[in-house]
Amino acid sequence: MAWDFASMDTSELDATIASLEAEVETLSAKGISLDMARGKPSPAQVDLSRPLLDVLNADSDLNDEGVDAANYGVPWGIPSAKRLMAAIMGCDERKVVVAGASSLNIQFDCLVHAWVRGVRGEAPWGTLPRVAFLCPSPGYDRHFAMTEHFGIENIPVPMCEDGPDMDVIEKLVADPAVKGMWVVPKYQNPTGITFSDEVVRRIARLAPAAPDFRVFWDNAYAVHDLYVEGDELLEIFGAIEEAGGRDLVYEFASTSKITFPGAGIAAVAASPEDLADLETTFAIERVCSDKVNMLRHARYLPDLAALKAHMAREAEVLRPRFEIVASKLEEGLAGIDDCSWGAPRGGYFVSFRGPEGSARAIVALCREVGVTLTPAGATWPGGEDPKDRDLRIAPSYPTLDELSEALDVFCTCARLVCARLAREARG
Amino acid sequence: MAWDFASMDTSELDATIASLEAEVETLSAKGISLDMARGKPSPAQVDLSRPLLDVLNADSDLNDEGVDAANYGVPWGIPSAKRLMAAIMGCDERKVVVAGASSLNIQFDCLVHAWVRGVRGEAPWGTLPRVAFLCPSPGYDRHFAMTEHFGIENIPVPMCEDGPDMDVIEKLVADPAVKGMWVVPKYQNPTGITFSDEVVRRIARLAPAAPDFRVFWDNAYAVHDLYVEGDELLEIFGAIEEAGGRDLVYEFASTSKITFPGAGIAAVAASPEDLADLETTFAIERVCSDKVNMLRHARYLPDLAALKAHMAREAEVLRPRFEIVASKLEEGLAGIDDCSWGAPRGGYFVSFRGPEGSARAIVALCREVGVTLTPAGATWPGGEDPKDRDLRIAPSYPTLDELSEALDVFCTCARLVCARLAREARG
Repeated sequence: MAWDFASMDTSELDATIASLEAEVETLSAKGISLDMARGKPSPAQVDLSRPLLDVLNADSDLNDEGVDAANYGVPWGIPSAKRLMAAIMGCDERKVVVAGASSLNIQFDCLVHAWVRGVRGEAPWGTLPRVAFLCPSPGYDRHFAMTEHFGIENIPVPMCEDGPDMDVIEKLVADPAVKGMWVVPKYQNPTGITFSDEVVRRIARLAPAAPDFRVFWDNAYAVHDLYVEGDELLEIFGAIEEAGGRDLVYEFASTSKITFPGAGIAAVAASPEDLADLETTFAIERVCSDKVNMLRHARYLPDLAALKAHMAREAEVLRPRFEIVASKLEEGLAGIDDCSWGAPRGGYFVSFRGPEGSARAIVALCREVGVTLTPAGATWPGGEDPKDRDLRIAPSYPTLDELSEALDVFCTCARLVCARLAREARG
Repeated sequence: MAWDFASMDTSELDATIASLEAEVETLSAKGISLDMARGKPSPAQVDLSRPLLDVLNADSDLNDEGVDAANYGVPWGIPSAKRLMAAIMGCDERKVVVAGASSLNIQFDCLVHAWVRGVRGEAPWGTLPRVAFLCPSPGYDRHFAMTEHFGIENIPVPMCEDGPDMDVIEKLVADPAVKGMWVVPKYQNPTGITFSDEVVRRIARLAPAAPDFRVFWDNAYAVHDLYVEGDELLEIFGAIEEAGGRDLVYEFASTSKITFPGAGIAAVAASPEDLADLETTFAIERVCSDKVNMLRHARYLPDLAALKAHMAREAEVLRPRFEIVASKLEEGLAGIDDCSWGAPRGGYFVSFRGPEGSARAIVALCREVGVTLTPAGATWPGGEDPKDRDLRIAPSYPTLDELSEALDVFCTCARLVCARLAREARG
């Protein structure tokens, strides 16, 4: 195996490093400028949603089952949009409030509610000496940034093959200052892992010391399968009911990576009592959300069949990108000690784990050559990856040719960094 | 004058009361059910914005001066939408962030920023023992409800003929716990008053003890003139600059009563430093706002001429409603001691002031007959009108016939309440 640095003798390794350095030099000279940093759909993918813009016109009936979508009122969402978002989350539509265009924004609103008013009559978090959140890591940088913004202590929890380390979580929730947990349960950002039924059941059975502990269940990739046979995520509210529990989870979803990013509709689902509690803050925030865009979306995606057909078209654009990543990483990095990566069947990311101390060096080297990656550490709370080894590859935006070129750069840079680390280890 | 109760002798007054009671009885029997409670455009008015739905279709260019409106990015708004919102507010587009569909929502976001993070490095309001806001009253109920939601103390300030009582305000801002002030400077909700140049200049010259004091300048009715000659509001940022000041005002506006209520676009304007400060929280809240709807609005209202033409069409629907209110009130209540009302040239409301102790009784009597008004006291902080005399009439939603009937009810009920109060005063 060409990249088994461990089995090379030192002169062979030195020669390999020299040759890789020459390769990087050659790449640098090409004036590459590519971005694999963010989970942003490509223009070709976004264009698939253009028919959405034809759904409503000046002559459309703007009434939705008795609700006038074109005027004030109905602050919790029009009936057909509630049904759409419930279908995406796989939960009862009576659990759903549709609000705004961004599920991240609703997560923020839920935090504000807890911070300023308190959850279900408990003390407002803003009045407590210490509030902590559990952060399965690597995870979604914007989640961690949000709790950090409030001054909440982010506690990293290891991600395992089938979800977050539940042994650790079960211990940590015994602390009443631990008020919540961030999770992306399906095609997790960035690992692509879907939580196993057992992990979902253990989350559903959690008995946190804090009665106002809530899991922020960000089901961002609920219907974002790359293959006809997608991963199956156990429905969380059903699991909670089965466990005899009730008020544990706020679930979030949006159409941001279904139709137009940033211009879709978003929703939260919760127990009826939790929803009524959240609504006391939502009602203060705005008169109502954009119901015209709800109507547009609900008519464009009237049922699960239409939604699945649309997502299958999206997958056709995304899948080849993920397959290039898989083949390039295999071709370029297989056999290097301590290098591994995910093989997600959905979502927007591929996570890469290198040897300890490799991540920042790889990102820096890639940047020199002209390829922008998500900053090393970004997927850890505070931007601090304790072993400096996790990287996130976002293959959705570049064209196939660009992606192929960017991955060649990535693999070459990673090889060089790994070879140098192997050499350093010999002293 | 038929309704000059003061000049009637007691037996004449008693007979008038009996006759008014019979009138109310007759009205009650008619089974009326009308709503003058909220500032909601009528369906006829909303329909004027239907062409907005034709602006974008599947073949549209979704690029706005180099910005792709259909994908993530550009969190502070697309160039053309910034220009539109700046034109509405009459300020420099570089002062503007366009975000979401609701200006009320941005006001909430600004409060959250101040509460959780603090304004420009000052202590977060949530950490202070006391935070107070000045509330020119009568004023907008949702403003007062918002600060109340945070536990902020709302301090009522009298509204005068030309804006809030500036003598009172200039004294109150000497208290460092006073952190802000709610104002609707043009066609104020509910009085319809536009602040005079002198009031705007005195606001611009305010020297509050708290460096993080901000005026929440809700320019909700900036372009909502009923007549070709609308009221002229002095532009606040210019006034501040003239006064040698800088960071004093967050200005808000939206298209909610320009196009579709709840489904428009909204904006905040502030000094560059204030904007940069607010953006540290906005950036945490969401990836970006709905830029497709921004593009739709900016193309529908490409310049001030198009905006004015659209608002003139809106005014044609609204104006006769305001004129019915004026003529019915004149016809039904002129000459009664201590009854007065506004004659707004724009906005959404007509405020009515009756004798002390009349407001709740009028609302209750109207409700019995079948006409819903905004609750008495709603326009005062905490819902407490200290003299129980202010009412808000919202004429926009009903048809002309409904409105005419509702005002007959209102005037009859108000007459009866006033007659009873006059009788009670005689012992």
